[in-house]
Amino acid sequence: MPTLRVELFAGRTVEQKRALAAALTEATVKTLGGSPDAVDILFYDIQRQDWATGGTLWSDKAPAPPPSNKP
Amino acid sequence: MPTLRVELFAGRTVEQKRALAAALTEATVKTLGGSPDAVDILFYDIQRQDWATGGTLWSDKAPAPPPSNKP
Amino acid sequence: MPTLRVELFAGRTVEQKRALAAALTEATVKTLGGSPDAVDILFYDIQRQDWATGGTLWSDKAPAPPPSNKP
Amino acid sequence: MPTLRVELFAGRTVEQKRALAAALTEATVKTLGGSPDAVDILFYDIQRQDWATGGTLWSDKAPAPPPSNKP
Amino acid sequence: MPTLRVELFAGRTVEQKRALAAALTEATVKTLGGSPDAVDILFYDIQRQDWATGGTLWSDKAPAPPPSNKP
Amino acid sequence: MPTLRVELFAGRTVEQKRALAAALTEATVKTLGGSPDAVDILFYDIQRQDWATGGTLWSDKAPAPPPSNKP
Repeated sequence: MPTLRVELFAGRTVEQKRALAAALTEATVKTLGGSPDAVDILFYDIQRQDWATGGTLWSDKAPAPPPSNKP
Repeated sequence: MPTLRVELFAGRTVEQKRALAAALTEATVKTLGGSPDAVDILFYDIQRQDWATGGTLWSDKAPAPPPSNKP
Repeated sequence: MPTLRVELFAGRTVEQKRALAAALTEATVKTLGGSPDAVDILFYDIQRQDWATGGTLWSDKAPAPPPSNKP
Repeated sequence: MPTLRVELFAGRTVEQKRALAAALTEATVKTLGGSPDAVDILFYDIQRQDWATGGTLWSDKAPAPPPSNKP
Repeated sequence: MPTLRVELFAGRTVEQKRALAAALTEATVKTLGGSPDAVDILFYDIQRQDWATGGTLWSDKAPAPPPSNKP
Repeated sequence: MPTLRVELFAGRTVEQKRALAAALTEATVKTLGGSPDAVDILFYDIQRQDWATGGTLWSDKAPAPPPSNKP
């Protein structure tokens, strides 16, 4: 009966959620046993203006630099 | 002080939520006692692409056949 | 697929939860249709020292007078 | 690691959420210690038609009179 | 920043939760990218008398037969 | 009607929760207006073995060094 609620920044595609739902379900069944049909997963898209860390909304934070910023 | 959070597929009408809020509140008060005013109910509409069971998004599942499909 | 999460003060008996689960499920199915088997209900017992209203923990509030306090 | 989930009526501005996130984080750190960076806050906007108290949706309740309505 | 809340029947060992936390985090990072350090997972143990499906508490349901019960 | 759910590591005292409930309620009312009586706060104590960051349970992480560890 495991139920997973996933809060993540809005903007992920349906393809990403489809892949994530499959991967999380597989990880759960492999670890706990039981049937995949007993695993429920709910996604909650959170806007960056609705999530704060350190007292600052993510919509107010400077974007992270790209992974590689070599010229 | 009971607080109920209800996650349900998006698409229900305000009339359905109005009736459900009244029915859930009545059921709670009849069973636990207390005042209806102490019962809070919050509805969360979940899109079918945000809910997976068995690792598959509900937006990807074939729709259930109608209750009666006699020709 | 409705899922209900019920937060209530700790101290209710299993009998009360059994009755409440049945009543909430019946109310949900009557209002929304669908199968009872699709309704999940989870109870969360909250201690009075873990719930505040108006900035005061319920464990610090004076108990309400009994419903009838006629001498 | 405190994580706060705040459910509030939809309609608050980003400015209000920005100020609330800062104030809640400061209150948490002052009381519990630790670093502000360890405090996460998530806002959930709830429509009045998705929140019921006493069995009645807030979208169906008569609006409260203004605090002072003297001419 | 993904945060996962996992509700599961009480009784799983710390070893199972340790393995599940690692597997869910890996699945999330593989699918969404980002750093593992940005993934938070919280486990909520739910007693069988606090979870109902179909209006019946799981503590009241007959246990499922073992996968293989050949003598 | 704001409702705050606070997840924090188990081990905080009632005194800390009492102070935190008061401070969070004051911060909410100052920022959003409204009455303190409309603010509900619920605390959820999470054991370190039930919270993972970066795929590792907090009960498995080495404790942080004390703020000052000069000999």
